[in-house]
Amino acid sequence: MAIVLGDNQYGKAEVRLVRLIRDTPRHQIQDLSVSTALRGDFAAAHLSGDQASVLPTDSQKNTVYALARQQPPGQIEDFALRLARHFTAEIPAVTGARVEIEEYAWDRLQSGDGRTHDHAFARRGQEVRTTVVTVDTAGGAERAWVVSGIRDLVVLKSAGSEFRGFYTDQYTTLPETDDRILATQLVARWRYAAAESDWAASHAGIRSALLGAFADTHSRALQQTLAAMGTAALTAYPEVAEIRFSAPNKHHFEVDLTPFGLDNPGQVFYAADRPYGLIEAVVTRDDAPDPGLAWYAVPGFT
Amino acid sequence: MAIVLGDNQYGKAEVRLVRLIRDTPRHQIQDLSVSTALRGDFAAAHLSGDQASVLPTDSQKNTVYALARQQPPGQIEDFALRLARHFTAEIPAVTGARVEIEEYAWDRLQSGDGRTHDHAFARRGQEVRTTVVTVDTAGGAERAWVVSGIRDLVVLKSAGSEFRGFYTDQYTTLPETDDRILATQLVARWRYAAAESDWAASHAGIRSALLGAFADTHSRALQQTLAAMGTAALTAYPEVAEIRFSAPNKHHFEVDLTPFGLDNPGQVFYAADRPYGLIEAVVTRDDAPDPGLAWYAVPGFT
Amino acid sequence: MAIVLGDNQYGKAEVRLVRLIRDTPRHQIQDLSVSTALRGDFAAAHLSGDQASVLPTDSQKNTVYALARQQPPGQIEDFALRLARHFTAEIPAVTGARVEIEEYAWDRLQSGDGRTHDHAFARRGQEVRTTVVTVDTAGGAERAWVVSGIRDLVVLKSAGSEFRGFYTDQYTTLPETDDRILATQLVARWRYAAAESDWAASHAGIRSALLGAFADTHSRALQQTLAAMGTAALTAYPEVAEIRFSAPNKHHFEVDLTPFGLDNPGQVFYAADRPYGLIEAVVTRDDAPDPGLAWYAVPGFT
Amino acid sequence: MAIVLGDNQYGKAEVRLVRLIRDTPRHQIQDLSVSTALRGDFAAAHLSGDQASVLPTDSQKNTVYALARQQPPGQIEDFALRLARHFTAEIPAVTGARVEIEEYAWDRLQSGDGRTHDHAFARRGQEVRTTVVTVDTAGGAERAWVVSGIRDLVVLKSAGSEFRGFYTDQYTTLPETDDRILATQLVARWRYAAAESDWAASHAGIRSALLGAFADTHSRALQQTLAAMGTAALTAYPEVAEIRFSAPNKHHFEVDLTPFGLDNPGQVFYAADRPYGLIEAVVTRDDAPDPGLAWYAVPGFT
Repeated sequence: MAIVLGDNQYGKAEVRLVRLIRDTPRHQIQDLSVSTALRGDFAAAHLSGDQASVLPTDSQKNTVYALARQQPPGQIEDFALRLARHFTAEIPAVTGARVEIEEYAWDRLQSGDGRTHDHAFARRGQEVRTTVVTVDTAGGAERAWVVSGIRDLVVLKSAGSEFRGFYTDQYTTLPETDDRILATQLVARWRYAAAESDWAASHAGIRSALLGAFADTHSRALQQTLAAMGTAALTAYPEVAEIRFSAPNKHHFEVDLTPFGLDNPGQVFYAADRPYGLIEAVVTRDDAPDPGLAWYAVPGFT
Repeated sequence: MAIVLGDNQYGKAEVRLVRLIRDTPRHQIQDLSVSTALRGDFAAAHLSGDQASVLPTDSQKNTVYALARQQPPGQIEDFALRLARHFTAEIPAVTGARVEIEEYAWDRLQSGDGRTHDHAFARRGQEVRTTVVTVDTAGGAERAWVVSGIRDLVVLKSAGSEFRGFYTDQYTTLPETDDRILATQLVARWRYAAAESDWAASHAGIRSALLGAFADTHSRALQQTLAAMGTAALTAYPEVAEIRFSAPNKHHFEVDLTPFGLDNPGQVFYAADRPYGLIEAVVTRDDAPDPGLAWYAVPGFT
Repeated sequence: MAIVLGDNQYGKAEVRLVRLIRDTPRHQIQDLSVSTALRGDFAAAHLSGDQASVLPTDSQKNTVYALARQQPPGQIEDFALRLARHFTAEIPAVTGARVEIEEYAWDRLQSGDGRTHDHAFARRGQEVRTTVVTVDTAGGAERAWVVSGIRDLVVLKSAGSEFRGFYTDQYTTLPETDDRILATQLVARWRYAAAESDWAASHAGIRSALLGAFADTHSRALQQTLAAMGTAALTAYPEVAEIRFSAPNKHHFEVDLTPFGLDNPGQVFYAADRPYGLIEAVVTRDDAPDPGLAWYAVPGFT
Repeated sequence: MAIVLGDNQYGKAEVRLVRLIRDTPRHQIQDLSVSTALRGDFAAAHLSGDQASVLPTDSQKNTVYALARQQPPGQIEDFALRLARHFTAEIPAVTGARVEIEEYAWDRLQSGDGRTHDHAFARRGQEVRTTVVTVDTAGGAERAWVVSGIRDLVVLKSAGSEFRGFYTDQYTTLPETDDRILATQLVARWRYAAAESDWAASHAGIRSALLGAFADTHSRALQQTLAAMGTAALTAYPEVAEIRFSAPNKHHFEVDLTPFGLDNPGQVFYAADRPYGLIEAVVTRDDAPDPGLAWYAVPGFT
């Protein structure tokens, strides 16, 4: 028996980058959090502390800023690909790079004269656009995967949601309902079939397809709603190979007002924090290309 | 020397209430967090544990839900006044009530057919609408104060902000600048001159005046911007007696790219978390009515 | 009617400072978050943007680091006094300074040989030691106040807590209980009678008196427990003028297991997040010196 | 091409359970957060909304509480195994269960008489003990895996840490150092070779081995420290098959005080929030049993 090193990667997490484009008086702003992780032959660093092959995480951070200067990031998928390819091409020991980017949207403020302002902005909200790009050169030829998505989009239906006909055991006390609030703080991530697409159009379209299906599907369970959402997006966007959902069921409980002589037909709810249901599901094409390393992370961690 | 009880209050904090209005197929949603605090003669509870005068905080929570059933909350100022007046009028030992409400906005989702949906919604963003209402009957006649506001509205200017001509001491290394990013996560709270107003119109107008002034003021410092914002709102809205700001200066540092042979004329920024500047300021009318208990909280706590 | 500037202050918040003392092989570590706020005649900065009197918040941050180099901070009360006096003495426009410090405790790790390590440490926990020092020179002579405390100390009693005999109204459904869990995430802040004390001994003693009284008092309500805690500390420590508590009542609800044929005599509890009770109370000596500016903050904010 | 359902699971997350043991006047407290997830044939729920096989997540929550009443949880690994086996054995459609438990430690408070108290406690700190148990019956026979660990243990070395001899590229500006602060907020998770062990003793021993190695290893890089920690634990504890680390490198930057005429030989540091280095590494035995489903989660999510 010997003790050996298994999978590993290292990088810089949450490099906060604000990039302004000020070529004209009407400025643009891009607000990102970039995390890089490198893979390759780094056994010496772990086993003997020899850093000769290790590009410091500080240099990775500098790279993010320098590449953002050379050219505006643009679509986060493109910027993540540029960064990942830089590391795999330029750093000898690196045979794989994983670049994760979150983008925070801003809207223009209004001037006092009612026009949208050239250089004043407000953060739009809590929804975040995400991408995870993986580039691998371990096998010689470069392979690349793009997984994009959204997180922290909170959606709710005040009708068109039921939950009944479920399995019951000795610990079941939940009554059936044909009218409840359905709410979730959505995380959706979709794998593109290829590392090339019209990212902006795809993102807007897929997001819209997901939300339209959430709104329009009569829900017999959150599972079914998620499947309908995934199906809608996969049907409309052939560039998507699969979609993965992690959806907390944010419970809204009807408050019992009968002690006070009041009925409560779906009007007054207590929004609970914990516990919450958690549904995780994958919807995919049966002919989707192999995911390769698209979803790869050191197992056991995010 | 004796040890005595000083100021005190007690209540239920962060009662999460979602209220649906479903009178027509086109539903409305209102999403609130309500905190109540009661004042009065509760010395016995503290000194001997005698609870005979103490309305449980659980009953306060029930009251929030019951009153929300009897009538939709409507404007949060009105709902806070209803609640505060209920407690001062109905509970014998209570001579003062402070009700704080936060409101989270929702937007309608789009159906697949492009129309806004009747009963599907998305949380708008991180900006929160707030109110703190205080009702006092200790002197016999009822007095009431309303302080409303916004929090967590993140705004940024990518031009029109300088910082120079400041005082320097032996610990000053900051260079002057005539072009920097100005950003803050705004908390603004304004006291109304009277406990009656067209709350919805006032809130929308004041918010708009604040943001317009933020956008349009050439900023020599965040202090000056806040004063301009306050002045704009007070000028346009006579129902406001004073405005208080707590504004973190969210620093965005230009990244030094010269080691990489790159200039960086206001394009690539590092958005720092901590430390941050913090500006607190009050702008008021010189003939504003006395604030009374409008801002009162047990000193030393929020 | 004119629009005028009211109270204001500005400074740098949450300057994270780790100070090592490495005079001997057995190192010491001090881990602080320092926030400074200056008051004085800064009207020009607000009204016209003239910064000539304004010491940048960046310089305030530098001052924290430089003074920590000249001499280790030591007791946080002493370091806050040094900083506040520096600003009031050295910066012409400043007539008042408020310095708030939080300290995070560390314990030594054990070596493999079982001895405590000379230079390896672990963060102790979530309890934070706090101080807020105010120095004012507006009236000519210097006055100083020290308010110290603890926050985020979570304590719980699994017996010796009841809640009954309370006032009931039409919205009361809470049953009386003579046996419940009592738990709180304590914030306690005490004002010293003078700006001079053996801070370390006082802090340790007061903390111990508070916790001993929490443990030993049979509780008829959280209000009573807080009063007993404050009385214990004030009785034993004459250097304390008053104590203020902000104590959330962290509810632990007995789970109803009767649907499953199980009783539950105080054994299985659901620990709720929100809402929570919130008790705020002050215990003081009747001959305490006037608080002056000890608790002063721009009203309406923390 | 058809659209199909991929991997999925569902359950209740963050069931907060406080369990008291009050058989004697000296009470014991156990404070847990339990998350359950079920796998099996739930395609109908997703595809048609048919819930006939679906045990509600509410029933899963009830099960947690009921089983905690029947017998105190004891070691979290045992309680997770009991829960997972309950679901796989009792619920027809379930062929796999994943139960994740976090445990928060409490210490006894001191009475005024100096003795540790029978029923008064304080939360120990931010370190959390964790376990993830997976039970699978899809293949007929039951298989079970246990992965335990710790998270949010913040450790720091004030000496014995260097970083030099690293690879440099055109974006490298970081100077080499032979003396820096090394600090991390450790997440360590270890897979047991079998689903049976003396969990309490193993946990205490492994934790102690990890921390001893952190303290005693002269660090040439965080990678090397982690490998040393893993090796120490695997060497001393044959019941462990592998250890996985996710370790942020919490940067502490020496403040440049030369503008103020001060040197700073490793004494005054700025503790940065973001970005941070992030090292992920696995240390394993070369003859470790196959991990099976031990680390399985719906890929792309935690």
